[in-house]
Amino acid sequence: MSLLKTKNFISAHDVTDINALVAKALDYKANPFKDKTLGTGKRIGCLFLNPSMRTRLSTQIAAQNLGMEPIVFNVGSEGWKLEFEEEAIMSGSTSEHVKDAAPIMGQYFDILAIRTFPSLANKEDDYSELYVNQFIKYSGIPVLSLETATLHPLQSLTDVITIKETFKEKRKPKVVLTWAPHVKPLPQCVANSFSQWMNAWGEVDFVVTHPEDYELDPAFTGNATILHNQDEALKDADYVYVKNWSTYTDYAKIYNNDPSWMLTLDKLKHTNNARVMHCLPVRRNVELSDEVLDSPHSIVTREAGNRVWAAQAVLSELLGQLNS
Amino acid sequence: MSLLKTKNFISAHDVTDINALVAKALDYKANPFKDKTLGTGKRIGCLFLNPSMRTRLSTQIAAQNLGMEPIVFNVGSEGWKLEFEEEAIMSGSTSEHVKDAAPIMGQYFDILAIRTFPSLANKEDDYSELYVNQFIKYSGIPVLSLETATLHPLQSLTDVITIKETFKEKRKPKVVLTWAPHVKPLPQCVANSFSQWMNAWGEVDFVVTHPEDYELDPAFTGNATILHNQDEALKDADYVYVKNWSTYTDYAKIYNNDPSWMLTLDKLKHTNNARVMHCLPVRRNVELSDEVLDSPHSIVTREAGNRVWAAQAVLSELLGQLNS
Amino acid sequence: MSLLKTKNFISAHDVTDINALVAKALDYKANPFKDKTLGTGKRIGCLFLNPSMRTRLSTQIAAQNLGMEPIVFNVGSEGWKLEFEEEAIMSGSTSEHVKDAAPIMGQYFDILAIRTFPSLANKEDDYSELYVNQFIKYSGIPVLSLETATLHPLQSLTDVITIKETFKEKRKPKVVLTWAPHVKPLPQCVANSFSQWMNAWGEVDFVVTHPEDYELDPAFTGNATILHNQDEALKDADYVYVKNWSTYTDYAKIYNNDPSWMLTLDKLKHTNNARVMHCLPVRRNVELSDEVLDSPHSIVTREAGNRVWAAQAVLSELLGQLNS
Repeated sequence: MSLLKTKNFISAHDVTDINALVAKALDYKANPFKDKTLGTGKRIGCLFLNPSMRTRLSTQIAAQNLGMEPIVFNVGSEGWKLEFEEEAIMSGSTSEHVKDAAPIMGQYFDILAIRTFPSLANKEDDYSELYVNQFIKYSGIPVLSLETATLHPLQSLTDVITIKETFKEKRKPKVVLTWAPHVKPLPQCVANSFSQWMNAWGEVDFVVTHPEDYELDPAFTGNATILHNQDEALKDADYVYVKNWSTYTDYAKIYNNDPSWMLTLDKLKHTNNARVMHCLPVRRNVELSDEVLDSPHSIVTREAGNRVWAAQAVLSELLGQLNS
Repeated sequence: MSLLKTKNFISAHDVTDINALVAKALDYKANPFKDKTLGTGKRIGCLFLNPSMRTRLSTQIAAQNLGMEPIVFNVGSEGWKLEFEEEAIMSGSTSEHVKDAAPIMGQYFDILAIRTFPSLANKEDDYSELYVNQFIKYSGIPVLSLETATLHPLQSLTDVITIKETFKEKRKPKVVLTWAPHVKPLPQCVANSFSQWMNAWGEVDFVVTHPEDYELDPAFTGNATILHNQDEALKDADYVYVKNWSTYTDYAKIYNNDPSWMLTLDKLKHTNNARVMHCLPVRRNVELSDEVLDSPHSIVTREAGNRVWAAQAVLSELLGQLNS
Repeated sequence: MSLLKTKNFISAHDVTDINALVAKALDYKANPFKDKTLGTGKRIGCLFLNPSMRTRLSTQIAAQNLGMEPIVFNVGSEGWKLEFEEEAIMSGSTSEHVKDAAPIMGQYFDILAIRTFPSLANKEDDYSELYVNQFIKYSGIPVLSLETATLHPLQSLTDVITIKETFKEKRKPKVVLTWAPHVKPLPQCVANSFSQWMNAWGEVDFVVTHPEDYELDPAFTGNATILHNQDEALKDADYVYVKNWSTYTDYAKIYNNDPSWMLTLDKLKHTNNARVMHCLPVRRNVELSDEVLDSPHSIVTREAGNRVWAAQAVLSELLGQLNS
């Protein structure tokens, strides 16, 4: 039975059973080539409208592990700028409309994987997921998100896998998502997505902490405990997920970039010997101190490694739908 | 028996029997993997001196369908600028001469596929096909054009395939190539190439229409009917091929960019319910109106999809020559 | 028995028996697919912090010949700028520290191939091979140099192969490395590396010639005869290896760019009908005259072609270590 409710993988809501998907991923981690012919003759097009390292490499590897042919295309540098606005008079800098490009991807590929960042200029467009929804609407084939304007589901699935894999006690772990300083305005998508998946998974006590003015969209944080006092939030934490984001309400601003929010070993003292997570890339000594990243608290390398198995589990489900 | 006269594929004149090549392409469309081991152990190097989306993806897919290993190399962004002028003193911005680069491609690959746009600065260089001819001369291996200064043969073969596939009547279809407005000076190659193939194929009534001053090189348009009145040209058309190009005579200028040449539904009324084609990317509401592209008249997605089968048929012929 | 002393391939000192490695490469040249399943299920990540043509293509082809999956990643254009300095406060232009990126490469790949040029700004960093050593330290997997700050071992192994393959007499050939003019300051790495390999191989009479002020690091030139008179150096040469480099002592400057150091046919008259080599890309009529490159003296195409077999021999050894 399919672990996906839809033919796409964009958010936690596309998954019927998160624990089963995690188990599938860990199964692939133990035996990467167990389904090495599942994707024979199937192609995945990986379109990057924005740069990527871990996401690109892990998706490419996951596809190859399943016997698929991944084709990577960097839209910006190898092709040209796409237009997303309906009825646009294309006399400006965009050379091709998604309405024309997406159906062709649907002719060339069996699955379309896309990374497309938010504009950070138009909140309505970003939060309506205009770009990826246009690809879904016009490509006619299953679409796998490699990070979109508001969500990063393969990262979040990876995060669930990593918590599941490392937490061995019988109780619910306390998981704290903490805002961290940065040098430029970043999307909210990793924070939104992590919140969405923690809530959908439901097997953790979930706390979000950030300075005032950095409230996330409640559609994602849901019933999480939200605190503006980082020390209070970190108390007894089993996992600390560190991430910067720019403001959501007054969109995409940096209001306060208080360096005291950088996670240090000292702050970890009040946790339950917490494991520290980050989606990477991380600005050392801005978001997280060297002493934390280089300590046994950090599980960021394991976390990044797990990206392969998250992608492989999801691709396997998408292939299963194609083959059925 | 080979369907190619030479070991290269650069123009319609390299083909012995266009209908047989079209039949071969449609055969691959029906059964993409029928020759999946034909290219085993053979490598195609795909060198892009200019950006590409459809051409790159369709060639890569066609090669994989035949069991070849395609290697894509973006000369500009991944490597360095090539020199093409004989006896150049290379103290400027070019880092490597085609005389040195091409023979090495000949060592590394079995087939060399190249995209190289015209300069739009030097008409003589462009129309002598300096760049691709240097690659042919110095690489020593079969060269497949992925669009050159004056021609785009895989696009044009695709166009023949698409007309053949969609026209079911016993008579010759009327095919009209119409100039369209654009925002910058474009090459003449798609228009040249389409004209050359329509003439070489010979199974259509072929009309070219454009504003005065946009005459194409008669070497390509041949005996086509040429009209400066678009409405007159479109009358009873079965196919309308829309494309902008810059001036040929006074080279690479935009003389007149009359927006009334944009193809609209209203203009299609006088056609024979014409199918509309375009090589893409298309500037919506500049070259072609949304209402046309989003109507059943448009077959641009089918056309772009057929790029795979055109490439696969030609690669199959080139492989056949290598293996014989 | 392994032909490598370590699990990495960075310099001539990593090789136990250069002649055996050369023989292995020539064996692959005669039969490219003889070990076509040796690398099944193994992945090589090819990270380019700098542009590459021959090195990238030859490594990719060599890996495929051995049945490996090569994944190419252009760090600069596809990803983001890496930080290499320990304890950096990353509030500037670098987005990710090698301490975080390298271990992830170690999770994704079985072998990591890296190209990383010198800064030409900080001699100490460059000559300590800071960048590649950080990748070795933090990735935890075998590292294959695709050219580093001070060395280019796959090029130099190729050069030994090419001399061995073309010199049929019973005596030692005289090999002259000559400086040539250029238009910008280049690394010393090809010259360093060629010197190191000629010395380590030991089967040639090795002479280095350059204008005063262009002394190379004696750690690489060793006991080579060093002459400032090019004509004297070229006398009776069997091989002339042409290469520009910037100054080493007063680091990375162009002191004198005397065009009379360009190699011409006239200068070759006093050689023993010498074969001329160059790693490419070459600035024609700046480093080497057209008349030399287009004459039978030149073996640069053969040399570049041999890059595949050098890479294949080394990858085969690295795979042998992984499998043992």
